[in-house]
Amino acid sequence: LFDQNSYLMFEILISHLENKITLTPSEKEIVKSFFEIKKLKRKEFFLREGDYCEYLSFVSQGILKSFTVDEKGIEHITLFAMEGWWISDFNSFLNGEKSILNISAIEPAEVLLISLKNYEEMIASVPVMNQYFRILYQNSLVTKDHRLMVFNSFTAEEKYVHFAKANPEIIKRVSHNLIASYLGLAPETVSRIRKRIVNRKESK
Amino acid sequence: LFDQNSYLMFEILISHLENKITLTPSEKEIVKSFFEIKKLKRKEFFLREGDYCEYLSFVSQGILKSFTVDEKGIEHITLFAMEGWWISDFNSFLNGEKSILNISAIEPAEVLLISLKNYEEMIASVPVMNQYFRILYQNSLVTKDHRLMVFNSFTAEEKYVHFAKANPEIIKRVSHNLIASYLGLAPETVSRIRKRIVNRKESK
Repeated sequence: LFDQNSYLMFEILISHLENKITLTPSEKEIVKSFFEIKKLKRKEFFLREGDYCEYLSFVSQGILKSFTVDEKGIEHITLFAMEGWWISDFNSFLNGEKSILNISAIEPAEVLLISLKNYEEMIASVPVMNQYFRILYQNSLVTKDHRLMVFNSFTAEEKYVHFAKANPEIIKRVSHNLIASYLGLAPETVSRIRKRIVNRKESK
Repeated sequence: LFDQNSYLMFEILISHLENKITLTPSEKEIVKSFFEIKKLKRKEFFLREGDYCEYLSFVSQGILKSFTVDEKGIEHITLFAMEGWWISDFNSFLNGEKSILNISAIEPAEVLLISLKNYEEMIASVPVMNQYFRILYQNSLVTKDHRLMVFNSFTAEEKYVHFAKANPEIIKRVSHNLIASYLGLAPETVSRIRKRIVNRKESK
């Protein structure tokens, strides 16, 4: 039996699915039955590099980050996942190889987890989930290509402005240092850009 | 009416689909009906940067490359697509924005084209195609992550060896210069690595 908060978390998942597909009441129940709930404290790890990523996870509350750590111990953030986003080390999840990513919570978070076996069974039981994931992955491929393009051809300020426009919630809730890490910029560069933008607005 | 060669091209597509999904005979006919055939000469462009990418294309014969060109006029190859691969500027195809990629034929090629409208109609008419593309995109996301990881953490020799192992056909059919461009290496570096590998094998 789930408590009221759990009920809410599943509603977030279902309403997210319904942005892309239509589910019957019984399909909704089947989908829900394949997930487990996990709560994460701030800074708690969900996955460590070198471990096996057993779950694909849907963020129903809070923000998680995925990141690599280089030889100098510096974090490189590859993704912020807030409510309505999925996160995993996809290669580890699908192919059973070791994770190259770390995943941890930036804010206290609640996630819905699905194992590979359950993911496959869920899709087999509710085939319209193929459509959901087809569209999700389609968009994700475009985002990844786009991110590569941004990395290769945008200036520091263009990178920041572009990110801020596309992710207003993240900008509000995540520290400048983490955003700098995601954008591949020095924290001072991000501070300088932010000041410049504020000054420009005030002089208008 | 299609000639015998066209018939063969469609058979390559269908047999590729059947690696991932099961189609009834009538579904096969519906799927085929959404594609157009196009032949490309060696070096012929299929798409130029700044144009709109109107088609997702399935390579049924030959090899295509997608690439960007930097300010110095240097090509950076992002993908080789041979028989059984799909190629497009995905963001342009799906979102109607201008292409950032060029696509041209390395060998004389034959491709099967599908427009966005037909892609959506085909999936609506044959819903199991959602499953096909879900699995295709799922694998493609893993490949993209993997490529980024290889770029960031492999040595030149590891990059080449890894690529050669995963793509023996491409190594046989594509010039060293193009492979160097794809791996982000200087052509001389690739020649040196190849010599080193051959010498090592001969001294065994």
